[in-house]
Amino acid sequence: MVAPKEALRVGLLGCGVVGSQVARLLVEQSEDLAARVGAPLELVGIAVRDTSKARDGVDPSLLTDDAHGLVARCDIVVEVLGGIEPARTLILESFAAGASVVTANKALLAQDGPTLYSAADAAGVDLYFEAAVAGAIPLVRPMRESLAGDRVTRVLGIVNGTTNYILDEMTTKGLAFDEVLRTAQELGYAEADPTADVEGHDAAAKAAILASLAFHTRVSLDDVACEGITKISADDVAWATETGHAIKLLAIAELTDAGVSARVHPALLPSRHPLAGVGGAFNAVFVEAEAAGPLMFYGQGAGGAPTASAVIGDVVSVARHRVLGGKGPDESSYASHPLAPADAAVTSYQFRLRVDDKPGVLARVAQVVAEHSVSIEAMRQQGTPAGGVANLVLTTHRAPEAALAATVAEIAGLDVVQEVTSVLRVEGA
Amino acid sequence: MVAPKEALRVGLLGCGVVGSQVARLLVEQSEDLAARVGAPLELVGIAVRDTSKARDGVDPSLLTDDAHGLVARCDIVVEVLGGIEPARTLILESFAAGASVVTANKALLAQDGPTLYSAADAAGVDLYFEAAVAGAIPLVRPMRESLAGDRVTRVLGIVNGTTNYILDEMTTKGLAFDEVLRTAQELGYAEADPTADVEGHDAAAKAAILASLAFHTRVSLDDVACEGITKISADDVAWATETGHAIKLLAIAELTDAGVSARVHPALLPSRHPLAGVGGAFNAVFVEAEAAGPLMFYGQGAGGAPTASAVIGDVVSVARHRVLGGKGPDESSYASHPLAPADAAVTSYQFRLRVDDKPGVLARVAQVVAEHSVSIEAMRQQGTPAGGVANLVLTTHRAPEAALAATVAEIAGLDVVQEVTSVLRVEGA
Repeated sequence: MVAPKEALRVGLLGCGVVGSQVARLLVEQSEDLAARVGAPLELVGIAVRDTSKARDGVDPSLLTDDAHGLVARCDIVVEVLGGIEPARTLILESFAAGASVVTANKALLAQDGPTLYSAADAAGVDLYFEAAVAGAIPLVRPMRESLAGDRVTRVLGIVNGTTNYILDEMTTKGLAFDEVLRTAQELGYAEADPTADVEGHDAAAKAAILASLAFHTRVSLDDVACEGITKISADDVAWATETGHAIKLLAIAELTDAGVSARVHPALLPSRHPLAGVGGAFNAVFVEAEAAGPLMFYGQGAGGAPTASAVIGDVVSVARHRVLGGKGPDESSYASHPLAPADAAVTSYQFRLRVDDKPGVLARVAQVVAEHSVSIEAMRQQGTPAGGVANLVLTTHRAPEAALAATVAEIAGLDVVQEVTSVLRVEGA
Repeated sequence: MVAPKEALRVGLLGCGVVGSQVARLLVEQSEDLAARVGAPLELVGIAVRDTSKARDGVDPSLLTDDAHGLVARCDIVVEVLGGIEPARTLILESFAAGASVVTANKALLAQDGPTLYSAADAAGVDLYFEAAVAGAIPLVRPMRESLAGDRVTRVLGIVNGTTNYILDEMTTKGLAFDEVLRTAQELGYAEADPTADVEGHDAAAKAAILASLAFHTRVSLDDVACEGITKISADDVAWATETGHAIKLLAIAELTDAGVSARVHPALLPSRHPLAGVGGAFNAVFVEAEAAGPLMFYGQGAGGAPTASAVIGDVVSVARHRVLGGKGPDESSYASHPLAPADAAVTSYQFRLRVDDKPGVLARVAQVVAEHSVSIEAMRQQGTPAGGVANLVLTTHRAPEAALAATVAEIAGLDVVQEVTSVLRVEGA
């Protein structure tokens, strides 16, 4: 029996959906946590804006409106405020006071992660953020530690539950985007202002963090090329199903010859791909590494209790480091890669065209594709030509985004082409 | 810039499919590894039985037949010999010499894991074993660390690639077990003596380790109730597909009212369950935790490079602990649970019967079920009665294994029942 160690003081910044669950777990699991850490964890305060508001299951005497005072007297600070300020300042103050920090704040990490990692390293303390990328799914720890002797080459993630739910409903019920979005809003699955989700901004923040993690490279939100799901039509979804694909909004981080490519866009995935079956509001991240091969991590990407589970796992890790000495992996000492320009990303396109139904059209389209050094994987007709109009579907092999975009632009201008009905990227093939 | 630390001496026990890949990665990734560890890793020797045998890409001057001498001069010992002895003795000698150990040895951990964990704790060194459960899939670290503040309630794993491949082939090609096994043996996907795989023994060793990990309870191979896939018929598979299920060999570790249940058996999984889509030789482990909810980890469960990736991840972790002070989680200090008797496991049965096609048969069968306090979820006819014979399919709600087994035994003895064609458990519903 080891002599009991002095308690570690834990301060909580924020007491919303996640924070209240963190507070609950710290109290309910205190015995188990003490055994795992090697010292008791004492929740010494919870910083909130309004201390008079009652919070279910939270001891009101712990509430304080003095966040700065709280971080100054803690060994471990848990930041679940969200947003940039005052979270950023409070985290830097925590480091300055010698405290380790656990955060679930994806917006802050996507904007200013490298600054925070460096500040933590300089102060000799930990900054852990498992909950920031995909809620409850253990992802940061496997990437930082389990794959420490491997080389990650690509990450494909379904990291936004709202858009995954919408695409799922469009697929299973054959409904249009607007219709599904409206229902999702009524059910509370989508926000009144759904922009951050449906335009891909939330996924882009996570793509920036994933790319930084996978390739030890400073990738911020502004470096992520981003396209949402608002243009996906019911016809796109139906055609995808018919050809054995699922449409998913993917966060992609990839190491290419031109450097690190980080982007978010809808993509066609072959239905045999492990990500294709990830339904509803679930998240999953597919990682390809040189030695390990393909890996996938699946679970709940949001919600109070799941996110709190990830936060508490981090609290135990940083607490153990304080009890035993040492700290977690240092993110600032790795080799870094350049960022690839957005149009250097390598992908493949599937595009659909309304063309004049007459001889020679296919040849002209194929020639334009060839002139851009893009090669065609498949070209077929969708449906039967009618009224002098045919629908063509072209799928290319992988090529640089710039060449693919230029190909489509030139094809759109051909006199025999009436309309480019749809352009979708194909991934995971 | 921190002053360079003294190199850590790494000794490798075994140089087969996994060992040679570990040796390769230690050399090829040495710069990255040094950056991540904070000190260089020096491979000081590789213990093999026959030092005269050439090994691709391995420096012959590193080979030694003196394993005992090697472990005495190492900081970190990597054991990839497999089997019980001499692996067990060498690991204990390593601890005695103050070295940390990374092992991929599932047989040894399933038989004697708790003794080894205690010996490591007593010596104040690490024993890491990510590669022992599901090859490349990060599973041990997420369970030990990411979920440290949560409570795991159930683990369902597809942890044997050979049987998963066989069941997959039976499903997609409609072939019988024997036929698929023969082809798998010809292709090298199954051993000449396939017993360890098809009878579920390999999966049972992994179930023991998973149960120990999930519930901090001493579970050894002998505690795992085990049933293989040799009795699965083509008809079982066809019927499963028809009713929207997949048949998978599952390693199950579960916390029940009676304690920890660890078992291996084939089971029907609803096709929407994330494990149902895991095909071919892949492995996946589905974990349910109170706060995190459902999680799944997917990847390659075997093979030289994937397993070596997991081994190297562990080497980096234990090496960091030596450089920075501290060690990994202590497995011996947790609360423990009792083991549930095998027949207390709670599951549900789907069984098929050939019965006389006459009035009153259903009622008699239903009455037997009710008398065992089992409730029926569904009862239906398979096909159309012919020649005075009908085929019945019963699916029960969850009930203790003992009650379910007694129910089937009594039904088999009814004069109106000609044969119990098949009994399968249903999980994940």
